[in-house]
Amino acid sequence: MQNPLAKLVNELSKLPGIGERTATRLAFYILRAPSQYAQALSQAISEIKNKIRLCSVCFNLTEADPCQFCQNEGRDKALLCIVEEPQDLLAIEKSGTFRGRYHILHGVLSPLEGIGPEQLKIKELLRRLQDSSIQEIILATNSSVEGEATALYLVKLLKPFALKLTRIAHGIPMGGDLEYLDVMTIGSAIENRVVVS
Amino acid sequence: MQNPLAKLVNELSKLPGIGERTATRLAFYILRAPSQYAQALSQAISEIKNKIRLCSVCFNLTEADPCQFCQNEGRDKALLCIVEEPQDLLAIEKSGTFRGRYHILHGVLSPLEGIGPEQLKIKELLRRLQDSSIQEIILATNSSVEGEATALYLVKLLKPFALKLTRIAHGIPMGGDLEYLDVMTIGSAIENRVVVS
Repeated sequence: MQNPLAKLVNELSKLPGIGERTATRLAFYILRAPSQYAQALSQAISEIKNKIRLCSVCFNLTEADPCQFCQNEGRDKALLCIVEEPQDLLAIEKSGTFRGRYHILHGVLSPLEGIGPEQLKIKELLRRLQDSSIQEIILATNSSVEGEATALYLVKLLKPFALKLTRIAHGIPMGGDLEYLDVMTIGSAIENRVVVS
Repeated sequence: MQNPLAKLVNELSKLPGIGERTATRLAFYILRAPSQYAQALSQAISEIKNKIRLCSVCFNLTEADPCQFCQNEGRDKALLCIVEEPQDLLAIEKSGTFRGRYHILHGVLSPLEGIGPEQLKIKELLRRLQDSSIQEIILATNSSVEGEATALYLVKLLKPFALKLTRIAHGIPMGGDLEYLDVMTIGSAIENRVVVS
């Protein structure tokens, strides 16, 4: 007996960071918008679940398998960038600074939450390493405690493969104000200082 | 050639207050959620546009015409509460303090935006007043400049009908801290003080 408006508010408020008030505002917006909009949104939501799956090579989200990055012969096979989540891949792609391939772990090691190496795509990573074209692995997990621990774990695990292992640089973000940055970041920026002349 | 994820992010970021980052976060959430959720959300969005229309009596959003409030014989026909938007009706209903009927203007007078009395459901309000059962009209437009101007306009317009015209009270909100309230609110609260003993 729930009316369509209450139903939509209810569904929207299940989204992360969307409370009942915001959900109500969004529902009214959708209600007032031209019906093409509601249609397009509704369709985009149902399509995303039907059409998107994981790439069997890098475990990126994709429509086609293998994904656009794994298929693209223009991308350097020698470079493999390991990230936690598909969002991280998108962020790196937006920067336009990386022309290699990716491997998505789908998480980080987190003993407290019961996430060990078996829960991540690490077995699959090791299988990929049998492809001898890979020469450098860039560990681009986040700079959180779990991200660092996962990077450390991978360094140990991958050492026997005699590949070049690198970690993305930590330092002052562009536009970052020293005055407001935490000591860890500043310490890391000074430690990793770069010769400029 | 846009992929389903980019399409969903694009549609979501058209919602008010949702930027590209939030839209991406929501899209990934939908992608990870069980497919029943995506289905329910998608359906709720398309249903809201197909099933909801305006009540021909009070102009509330409704599935059935007349709406549940206009149909409900248990609600006092003598009391008519005028609000700006359907959201305001919902807010009043949640308070559980009003057992009369409603009339929704669908906006406020705003000469700057070219919204005059013809753009609001005022003609329709006058038509309803021919029903002699209405005895009191509560003006519950917002306390904004436009809301007050609209209330004032309605007072003038409705005076000839010899009805009781009331305006919702302005004052300190429950839990409101005098120290942080604006002078207009405090002024109004003192002016409208209520005898308690």
